[in-house]
Amino acid sequence: MIKKDNDVRTSIQLISVPHYVDERGDLTVVEEVVPFDISRVFAVRAMKGAVRGKHAHKKCSQFMVCVSGSIQVVCYDGVNESTYLLDRPSVGINVPPGVWAQETYEENGSILMVFCDYPYVADDYINDINDFREYKRNME
Amino acid sequence: MIKKDNDVRTSIQLISVPHYVDERGDLTVVEEVVPFDISRVFAVRAMKGAVRGKHAHKKCSQFMVCVSGSIQVVCYDGVNESTYLLDRPSVGINVPPGVWAQETYEENGSILMVFCDYPYVADDYINDINDFREYKRNME
Repeated sequence: MIKKDNDVRTSIQLISVPHYVDERGDLTVVEEVVPFDISRVFAVRAMKGAVRGKHAHKKCSQFMVCVSGSIQVVCYDGVNESTYLLDRPSVGINVPPGVWAQETYEENGSILMVFCDYPYVADDYINDINDFREYKRNME
Repeated sequence: MIKKDNDVRTSIQLISVPHYVDERGDLTVVEEVVPFDISRVFAVRAMKGAVRGKHAHKKCSQFMVCVSGSIQVVCYDGVNESTYLLDRPSVGINVPPGVWAQETYEENGSILMVFCDYPYVADDYINDINDFREYKRNME
């Protein structure tokens, strides 16, 4: 198997989210940097140590912003694995389809906002890592 | 001036947001209940006692969900005032155009997610309460 260095890096983008701070608090404007029309939005809140995600999407892109706390995101494209820390609202990560992602909540009550370009479809999820590896192999 | 009781209540809707809790944390699915296509999204985080908003929109509707902490929302349609407490992710409030809204953050780090049906346009804001009252009088 040929090592495809940079695959994850080039397909997964960390994107700065406009973020304005004043004495009243802070404002994060998300939609300007989401690289698609938003069809689905959900918020996940979890306790420290919770591990979520652990699936890939066939078609759906996901743009993730941690609006409170700190969340580690591990992305795996079938060959390379990359780790990102979302610890402020001013940075988001674009996870394209065909990438396995796992999120670890590093602080109690950390909140991940997820914006998607497709509505929820159960068949779009690949929930088993071996199925994912086979899916990627078949796409080569 | 005729008192238009129920005006605020009938135009402003509290809406249940699908919310799923398990041992890992909780998931709030917003887009299913937002009564419009989402054009703009922003998150506001503020310290206890912060008062934000204090404006009305001419065209833009806003759907607000408090994903962390507790936020009091006061809505004023030019005649009636109503107060709502958003203290869980499972309820949102739809604030239609032509309603003055003010949000008071009741806990440190409370987070309000706001979904809008229009992009940001400065001219859509009415930031002065007297201008708002005049705007509403002119619409009668």
